[in-house]
Amino acid sequence: MKRSLGAKTLVYPAPAWIVGSYDARGKPNGMTAAWGGLCCSDPPCVAVSLRKATYSYGNLVARKAFTVNVPSQSQVRQADYFGLVSGRTTDKFAATGLTAVRSDLVDAPYVQQCPLVLECKIVHVFELGLHTQFVGQIVDVKADESVLDAAGKPDILKVLPLVFSPGNQVYYGVGVSLGHAFAVGKEV
Amino acid sequence: MKRSLGAKTLVYPAPAWIVGSYDARGKPNGMTAAWGGLCCSDPPCVAVSLRKATYSYGNLVARKAFTVNVPSQSQVRQADYFGLVSGRTTDKFAATGLTAVRSDLVDAPYVQQCPLVLECKIVHVFELGLHTQFVGQIVDVKADESVLDAAGKPDILKVLPLVFSPGNQVYYGVGVSLGHAFAVGKEV
Repeated sequence: MKRSLGAKTLVYPAPAWIVGSYDARGKPNGMTAAWGGLCCSDPPCVAVSLRKATYSYGNLVARKAFTVNVPSQSQVRQADYFGLVSGRTTDKFAATGLTAVRSDLVDAPYVQQCPLVLECKIVHVFELGLHTQFVGQIVDVKADESVLDAAGKPDILKVLPLVFSPGNQVYYGVGVSLGHAFAVGKEV
Repeated sequence: MKRSLGAKTLVYPAPAWIVGSYDARGKPNGMTAAWGGLCCSDPPCVAVSLRKATYSYGNLVARKAFTVNVPSQSQVRQADYFGLVSGRTTDKFAATGLTAVRSDLVDAPYVQQCPLVLECKIVHVFELGLHTQFVGQIVDVKADESVLDAAGKPDILKVLPLVFSPGNQVYYGVGVSLGHAFAVGKEV
């Protein structure tokens, strides 16, 4: 028996990514975003949605670029901090001790300590309501050597990204492997 | 030291949702999608991206509605099956033993056995390249009584959604709690 819960943004899993940008003076900023996801394979694109009220919103509009930085479990406090305060009044990098690195490819900084980062140029801006969706074409993905597997691909169990639960607003880790896509279903 | 991995759709976590729809004859279909995410709080919206080649694509365009069905860990085989074969030639519900339930709110079926389902009417269709992004306004969220917590909210550790890893294409479970958002960052 299913219970109706109403019209709510309630679905799992959601990500918790730090969206990196520069403000008008070139000060790096980051904000934690959970409204987002991959949205196109060719060109490779990722979407993040921001409220107009955020400081990052103006940065993305002006710079036409952002980075997606995937914090690891050990960085949950810093990641949450990036969602707690505004870059308008705070230098979040200074406050957390994280390092903003200028991208060679797009006009945005990435977070050096995040094990996986995506450099994105904005190719679409969609007004959806309270949130504006920025679609970024992924120009490059960069990963720490320490999180790569033998084949040179990032291993999610080394990256250890945050899994955000919109309902109770709790961060979780990644659990055990349940099998390969396009494979386990053959046994259905 | 970060290694450049190129322009790839490589970020964590991604979801694994069954997108429910009706075809022209009213046959229910579902397809597993990992390119998607929440995208607006007001109105509450979720986005899913489909390739034009999929059978579901035409269904969504014609019916202007879809459901997002969150499979549980125990349904990983069925969920994968919904991404392996085409609804053009297969009745995936019959093949998996899952049940399509007609929504009272939108012109799409949901999956009875999935613990959490979202009923969505399409409010935007964005052409991004290989994928088309459908933005669905969430009209209702329905959850099994068995996955609700004491406050009547879905508990992610009872829903046990799949966490998809685009790199190695493996499904994972949800891991341990790492703390509350808008809270743990205060200790940074």
